[in-house]
Amino acid sequence: MNDCIFCKIVSGEIPSHKVYEDNWSLAFLDIAPSSYGHTLVIPKDHFENIYTLPDETLARLALTAKKVALAVKNATLCDGVNLIMNNEKNAGQIIFHAHIHIIPRKENDGLKLFPHGSSANEELIILSEKIKEQIKD
Amino acid sequence: MNDCIFCKIVSGEIPSHKVYEDNWSLAFLDIAPSSYGHTLVIPKDHFENIYTLPDETLARLALTAKKVALAVKNATLCDGVNLIMNNEKNAGQIIFHAHIHIIPRKENDGLKLFPHGSSANEELIILSEKIKEQIKD
Repeated sequence: MNDCIFCKIVSGEIPSHKVYEDNWSLAFLDIAPSSYGHTLVIPKDHFENIYTLPDETLARLALTAKKVALAVKNATLCDGVNLIMNNEKNAGQIIFHAHIHIIPRKENDGLKLFPHGSSANEELIILSEKIKEQIKD
Repeated sequence: MNDCIFCKIVSGEIPSHKVYEDNWSLAFLDIAPSSYGHTLVIPKDHFENIYTLPDETLARLALTAKKVALAVKNATLCDGVNLIMNNEKNAGQIIFHAHIHIIPRKENDGLKLFPHGSSANEELIILSEKIKEQIKD
């Protein structure tokens, strides 16, 4: 992808603060961190989001995310880590090269997860059937 | 784990709105959804969080999350999906059985991601070295 910032980070055309690299994936610091130690993990090959990531690439990406999450936790002495993957613009994805955010957390750091709502049991029954029908092998 | 709600959902002791199940993983609707279609994906075996998930279990969990995310997207006609995994209490983890939230998104749905901050280049250089030193094979 000629105009993808993350592809340019992979190629070295754009510099980054790398923390881990293997044949399939790369991890580097987010330059606009939500917390101290905020790191991004990406596949080296260009895929837009989770929908199009090949299974093997996704599996390797998840293992890199675990490895880097542990390193970030030990390096920052945080006591919690959020792993977040935003897919599509309306989910907050800004760079359209699949990536997992690793965000270290501390008590009372002020970062807020989505609020929880409620749902009627009947609605959940209907919805679960609709999702089941959409599961593809 | 005798007192784990998610283990009881796996065993069937506690009912759930299941949407997918295979030998290693299970997906069911969150009963306090952040959005319509909010689904949880868990390993059937009990592991507390990403730090302790065996590589194979984690890889299978990620593939299930992709499969379910696509089904949720198609069933809810959303135009974005956040995948979120909270590890440890201070990251918002409430049930201490590893799980990935699949949260469908729509434009102007009001859900807010963590704000971004800023960081000095010198600080990022030092931090990236600290994290690199903590990477374990």
